[in-house]
Amino acid sequence: MNSFTHKEIRQLCRQGKFQSPTPGFASGYVQANLVVLPKSVAFDFLLFCHRNPKPCPLLDVTEVGDAEPRMVAPGSDLRTDLPRYCVFRHGELIEEVTDIKQLWRDDFVAFLIGCSFSFETALLSAGVPVRHIEEKKNVPMYKTNLSCMSAGVFSSPLVVSMRPLLPADAIRAVDIMSRFPKSHGAPVHLGDESAIARRTFITSCRNYHRLFHALWKSTRC
Amino acid sequence: MNSFTHKEIRQLCRQGKFQSPTPGFASGYVQANLVVLPKSVAFDFLLFCHRNPKPCPLLDVTEVGDAEPRMVAPGSDLRTDLPRYCVFRHGELIEEVTDIKQLWRDDFVAFLIGCSFSFETALLSAGVPVRHIEEKKNVPMYKTNLSCMSAGVFSSPLVVSMRPLLPADAIRAVDIMSRFPKSHGAPVHLGDESAIARRTFITSCRNYHRLFHALWKSTRC
Repeated sequence: MNSFTHKEIRQLCRQGKFQSPTPGFASGYVQANLVVLPKSVAFDFLLFCHRNPKPCPLLDVTEVGDAEPRMVAPGSDLRTDLPRYCVFRHGELIEEVTDIKQLWRDDFVAFLIGCSFSFETALLSAGVPVRHIEEKKNVPMYKTNLSCMSAGVFSSPLVVSMRPLLPADAIRAVDIMSRFPKSHGAPVHLGDESAIARRTFITSCRNYHRLFHALWKSTRC
Repeated sequence: MNSFTHKEIRQLCRQGKFQSPTPGFASGYVQANLVVLPKSVAFDFLLFCHRNPKPCPLLDVTEVGDAEPRMVAPGSDLRTDLPRYCVFRHGELIEEVTDIKQLWRDDFVAFLIGCSFSFETALLSAGVPVRHIEEKKNVPMYKTNLSCMSAGVFSSPLVVSMRPLLPADAIRAVDIMSRFPKSHGAPVHLGDESAIARRTFITSCRNYHRLFHALWKSTRC
């Protein structure tokens, strides 16, 4: 499956034939998290991303009402080309769907935020093992004690993804990840995760999507 | 005069005693251009800056209605602490004033954009001469043939500032300026300016302020 190109995966998503998380897919291409918001709160969210560039590195922001990310994936359609979408109303998750064509509005703005899946190919190429890819699972995530900087109506604890590594590999990972600032860059933490993270361990795809706005990475020795 | 600290210069501005351009002042501190806009177009302008990070590197963006840039200059007041302000209505310059206290509105957002004046201290420290400081003039500016990426209602040609340098100094300047990405970073051009610039030469303070949204630098050998 993961020999498919980025365009083939988007096509499979559009046809509803690919609905799972994407670690290990479209290797060598940047992966992104999608946030779609009405224009009324788009300034606040763009400011939130500007103030928190490490958890929320912006790859592309569409014009109001436009579902095509013209800079990073011209020709694609953000309403159909992702595996799944979590739909929130008034802050509550109300459904999970495979496209949002019926929900799209003329006042919607789409934000594409860099994802740590993007540098995993570089880690593997350098001989640094990536446990969740080996185990064909989604990456483990933690809600931390750290806060993002708030902006307008948006505030959030920092959420991190975690990759278990031996110390020598962790050092190489820092070196490699530092070169990917648009995919979160260097880790925020090394060593015992209790220094920054509550024991809230997030594994489900649902929660993964819910916490789009604070994806981040840490590396545990 | 240019032995005053950044705080002293702000205080003099607040008292209406300092009203000129600021090259050479508050050396070692980042200098900024100010743009104030109503919330209704703030998303478009923030997106314009995000899409054009070299001419418009954002240093700080205030919350709606807040005139204090809490990240870069806590305690300062953007309505009074700048030398002069150009006031535009419907795209036309209508007046130039020394404070905007009476004009400030609850729906205003302030954007602070990095300025090439910031790296001039570093150039001088490295022995690279800066002609307009030697001559106690404002920096020369050109409107170029290049376009910024548009965003919503905002579009603009790229405007550059120009520093005449010998080739060896220009090479050092590129090296030094590359380390100041929030003050425009490396130049966009070296050599004959006709390759990118119309013969529109902008010198007045008024035009300088008018072209806030596309300040940039080039270096001419």
